[in-house]
Amino acid sequence: MILVVTLNPALDVTHRVPGADWSGVNRPAAVRTRPGGKGLNVARTLHALGAQVHAIGFIGGLTGQAVRSGLDEAKVPATFIAIAGDTRRTFTVVDDARGRVAGFYEPGPAVTGQEHLRLAVLYKKKLDGCAAVVLSGSLPAGVPADSYATLAKVAADAGVPAVVDASGPPLLAAAAAGAAVVKPNLAELERSTGRRLTAASGRPDLAAVEQAAAGLRTAEAQAVVVSLGPNGLLALTADQTWRAVPAGPVAGNPTGAGDAVAAGLALGLSRGEPWPERLRQAAALGAAAVAAPAAGDIDLADYRPELVGVRVVTARERTCR
Amino acid sequence: MILVVTLNPALDVTHRVPGADWSGVNRPAAVRTRPGGKGLNVARTLHALGAQVHAIGFIGGLTGQAVRSGLDEAKVPATFIAIAGDTRRTFTVVDDARGRVAGFYEPGPAVTGQEHLRLAVLYKKKLDGCAAVVLSGSLPAGVPADSYATLAKVAADAGVPAVVDASGPPLLAAAAAGAAVVKPNLAELERSTGRRLTAASGRPDLAAVEQAAAGLRTAEAQAVVVSLGPNGLLALTADQTWRAVPAGPVAGNPTGAGDAVAAGLALGLSRGEPWPERLRQAAALGAAAVAAPAAGDIDLADYRPELVGVRVVTARERTCR
Repeated sequence: MILVVTLNPALDVTHRVPGADWSGVNRPAAVRTRPGGKGLNVARTLHALGAQVHAIGFIGGLTGQAVRSGLDEAKVPATFIAIAGDTRRTFTVVDDARGRVAGFYEPGPAVTGQEHLRLAVLYKKKLDGCAAVVLSGSLPAGVPADSYATLAKVAADAGVPAVVDASGPPLLAAAAAGAAVVKPNLAELERSTGRRLTAASGRPDLAAVEQAAAGLRTAEAQAVVVSLGPNGLLALTADQTWRAVPAGPVAGNPTGAGDAVAAGLALGLSRGEPWPERLRQAAALGAAAVAAPAAGDIDLADYRPELVGVRVVTARERTCR
Repeated sequence: MILVVTLNPALDVTHRVPGADWSGVNRPAAVRTRPGGKGLNVARTLHALGAQVHAIGFIGGLTGQAVRSGLDEAKVPATFIAIAGDTRRTFTVVDDARGRVAGFYEPGPAVTGQEHLRLAVLYKKKLDGCAAVVLSGSLPAGVPADSYATLAKVAADAGVPAVVDASGPPLLAAAAAGAAVVKPNLAELERSTGRRLTAASGRPDLAAVEQAAAGLRTAEAQAVVVSLGPNGLLALTADQTWRAVPAGPVAGNPTGAGDAVAAGLALGLSRGEPWPERLRQAAALGAAAVAAPAAGDIDLADYRPELVGVRVVTARERTCR
């Protein structure tokens, strides 16, 4: 079982509007509504891959009910702490005609100390017997910045490795607290470490990325996996630096690709697979997620060929080429 | 009591985003959620004016529940026929920095014949003792285009005058069926009659508007009120052509101004006020609605000074000046 903690879930509403008029009235050609937020995307991807998964988090109001019924429909098991606030929405406008995607993300409700406490109790209970836990996404107001660190520490003490997908102080704190894997993307790693990690060409400066990632590796067992968009993954594990590079560029919507990567890392971790295999799966899932029409969706027909195409190399191989 | 029929209500979600990025992620500075759709805007405006009002219509799913609870909160009495489909949402992005408003209107659920029948029964029951009825907004799929005509005829037979705010075939059919007042705006009148009603200056061609409106006046008792945005109203009544012109231009969001005009017309009709007074109130409400931050909101502090400023003249006076 993989436990997925999602403290700030959302109802994702996507409107497809060919040729959007940004100062007029639009009638969307298609409307999709689904449970979202990074954690629930991870949970749905794991479920699509056939993994045993359980999501926990906060939920409130009618939007929260819509999230819950969407998960029920998708048959993703979940237990939520009901909160007084209303679960947030995200609203995405996809303009296929212009190849533009605009996202409007509501801030989400504040969580009380009492509600937070109830989640901590639920977390400890659900952690029992899990093979891995994923802590993913933004923290709602009212939840302290070191929450992921605390949850990762509780998991480590229970012998359950944690994958943390976050940014800023929560990421740094979780890394320091002994998360098994932290997975920032390039922008998050830049923000979290305050370093510029992009070369003048616009491509990631891999040496700088490796150095920044090394700064996050504080414990022996800990790994840092940086998702680099179309450039795949860079991973620092206990004894190696890896790259996992997809076969080629994928057209589509990159929203949620990082969540698919986190799902792949958690799955590999839960199955005790060696790092090259974990990274291959994670990179292929990231590419397949870009091809999928909505965040958190994975079409296994996209995933399988990507899996074959991913090239996993060590830093040494990279240097030799 | 004024009965307001709203066959395709909506949950209106408004995001205020200063300097929206239409190809990136935005974090709205403010989020407002409220019952919407033209009919419910009319009902809320009438309620704010202290009128006795009752809304009826179709509602479904969790979005429908949110509409209902929003009306409960606003203390607007309403009775809904529950439908299998999900009530629609509208998303509005207000970019104050650029003075742009973009609307994304979902199509709304289809209504079954059985559901439609149940509404007709509710309508007849609620009509009893009403002083006026408002039929406003788009028709959901599954509802025949002559529905407003049928409902207006039922009202007329029961001695209750109907105000119809619609466009296209439903407007034409309702006008022919003896609606007491039909209220298209300029664009709707253009679409409904297939005539060009705007002068080269961009201002309404008042002679052409009057002629087009006259084409809708088929019964003796019937009046046509055309809302002309910042240029106020043009009304053809049984024995006169009127203009009602606000004191000056109002800055703000014109969405919902037409609904405020319809509310003003229904209120005047229900109180048996003379036409100049009805038109004065309707034009002032339209102007006050533009000043209000969201559609369906009226601040009485905006309305009262507008009321003083509106100039109501007959066509003869207009010609003489």
